[in-house]
Amino acid sequence: MNDLFLKACQRKPVERTPVWIMRQAGRYLPEYRSIRAKVDFLTLCKTPDLAAEVTVQPVDRLGVDAAIVFSDILIVPEGMGMELVIDEPRGGPRFPSPIRSRRDIEALRMPDPHEKTGFVMEAIRRSRNALTGRAPVIGFSGSPWTLAAYMVQGNGAKNFRLAKQLVYGSSTDCHTLLEKLARAVTDYLNAQIEAGADAIQIFDTWGGLLSKDMFKEFSLAYIVSVIAGLRRNGVPIIVFCKGCGHSLREIAASGADVVGLDWTVDIGEARRSLEDGVALQGNLDPHALYSGSDRIREEVKTILSKYGRGTGHVFNLGHGILPDVPVENAQALVKAVQEESRAYH
Amino acid sequence: MNDLFLKACQRKPVERTPVWIMRQAGRYLPEYRSIRAKVDFLTLCKTPDLAAEVTVQPVDRLGVDAAIVFSDILIVPEGMGMELVIDEPRGGPRFPSPIRSRRDIEALRMPDPHEKTGFVMEAIRRSRNALTGRAPVIGFSGSPWTLAAYMVQGNGAKNFRLAKQLVYGSSTDCHTLLEKLARAVTDYLNAQIEAGADAIQIFDTWGGLLSKDMFKEFSLAYIVSVIAGLRRNGVPIIVFCKGCGHSLREIAASGADVVGLDWTVDIGEARRSLEDGVALQGNLDPHALYSGSDRIREEVKTILSKYGRGTGHVFNLGHGILPDVPVENAQALVKAVQEESRAYH
Repeated sequence: MNDLFLKACQRKPVERTPVWIMRQAGRYLPEYRSIRAKVDFLTLCKTPDLAAEVTVQPVDRLGVDAAIVFSDILIVPEGMGMELVIDEPRGGPRFPSPIRSRRDIEALRMPDPHEKTGFVMEAIRRSRNALTGRAPVIGFSGSPWTLAAYMVQGNGAKNFRLAKQLVYGSSTDCHTLLEKLARAVTDYLNAQIEAGADAIQIFDTWGGLLSKDMFKEFSLAYIVSVIAGLRRNGVPIIVFCKGCGHSLREIAASGADVVGLDWTVDIGEARRSLEDGVALQGNLDPHALYSGSDRIREEVKTILSKYGRGTGHVFNLGHGILPDVPVENAQALVKAVQEESRAYH
Repeated sequence: MNDLFLKACQRKPVERTPVWIMRQAGRYLPEYRSIRAKVDFLTLCKTPDLAAEVTVQPVDRLGVDAAIVFSDILIVPEGMGMELVIDEPRGGPRFPSPIRSRRDIEALRMPDPHEKTGFVMEAIRRSRNALTGRAPVIGFSGSPWTLAAYMVQGNGAKNFRLAKQLVYGSSTDCHTLLEKLARAVTDYLNAQIEAGADAIQIFDTWGGLLSKDMFKEFSLAYIVSVIAGLRRNGVPIIVFCKGCGHSLREIAASGADVVGLDWTVDIGEARRSLEDGVALQGNLDPHALYSGSDRIREEVKTILSKYGRGTGHVFNLGHGILPDVPVENAQALVKAVQEESRAYH
């Protein structure tokens, strides 16, 4: 069993820093593209055999220390009754009938995660079987705020104007929506833990749209409520709020075991400021993978040295890997972390 | 003469907090739209009488304490020889022949600002004449990095992938480009000061794309070089780097008199951390102007109270005003600042 990742999450001693890559099961991988040539994105999410296959691909190809189940954060709102459309090949996800009124919020169902999203649980089981201990499997969900932003906006528009209008214009409705989402996300993540997820990551991709106070009220409060409702059984929880470097202490106090950092944060400063109260995950700029393997190694060394000696660091990018990165560069990243990090342990 | 704004920039006592709004001469104003119905955006920038007219409009309509000359940050690259196209009505600016090679960088001319961009200087003169002391006039430029990001990317694309590729792939070329831009921006801003600009703002809209170290190397270093080259004669310099809350101390040490804050930063924490070494500008979330006047007043009070007593605060949004904000809400903001801030002075 490769338990480097889980040990680092729990700040137990490791012989080197574990590494995985957000969106590692994705378009930059030729073997992923060859499956996607045959099935569309949502079919892939909903076909456990195929989802498990792409979940395992980066472990085979890159030698990463964790696999993340192949799925999409918008599977939960779909389970709550919202039609989800993914425009191929690059249009991204959208809800043709976004939330526009209190009635729309009230109409959202509270889904049974095994019934509506059982394919995710099955993909976790099959990924674990296929991996036979070579890497643990991470389950995940979007944060309530990030899901709400998509559900209200209808798509991944640049500044989520409609979502912000809900915050400022009808904060009561916004809280009603977030409470409902927090319950659905809690159930969904508990089902993933029951299905065998070895760790859970909560993605707050759009927390950074909010001011510090609003982030606390509309995003972090609901992440805290989700974490409090998880039957963890020792499963580590990673919270990754993009663009929220202003609130690292508050995020670290959410109940998370690991705080994910985007690439704008100095990981050394973050560690000192959080006084080793949590593990840290991150935080190489995804664009660094456009450079060659020598430069990638230099960037890896910089981050390792900023973090410094000892456990509690899970190496990752500061956001998802970009679809046009050469696969050799992703391999160079993993190799560099594996080789350069031994000196810090 | 209304010198509240200039006094606050210099941290001299004022009787209330001055306020202006980034992009205040813009589409949310009916009188701006009626001029734009007759001329396109670039013609408006290049016709000093009309540019001065829209520069003055928000002083008349809102009673703001400063006017910012109507122009565009991409006027400088155009002066350096790059064709600039603005797709009406909402496509935004683009360079049909973006920078793609070292030769493109070498081909950029070092423009005489009076010759290539004399219309901006003339708009500053005419705005000052029209205002007759009712408000000072702010001149501005994009930062070298922000200009480079547009010039390399070709447009305002979401993640400026090509610009980041230049940083990671050919950092020498990137520095050559930035040095050239820093010289052009310095000349351009000196010409604005000579034309009568009462203050200067440097907009680093895309500094937040970079990691903290890269921001220092590729953006802030060139802002510092621009500021060092200005013949200031007491003209205050405002530096606004969006998404750079991680580097406020470094920005404050750039030579700026005023540091602009986006809405994600807590202005009270920023003031304490910078120990009143500079004035601060900001930082209401632009989306707050979607709410009603009562809520806007509450938000204004929160920011005033976070900043606390004494001078050194220029009230503003944390980014430009959005084009579909009702003009009454912008008026409500200005009125709330004018009324609520007296208690803090």
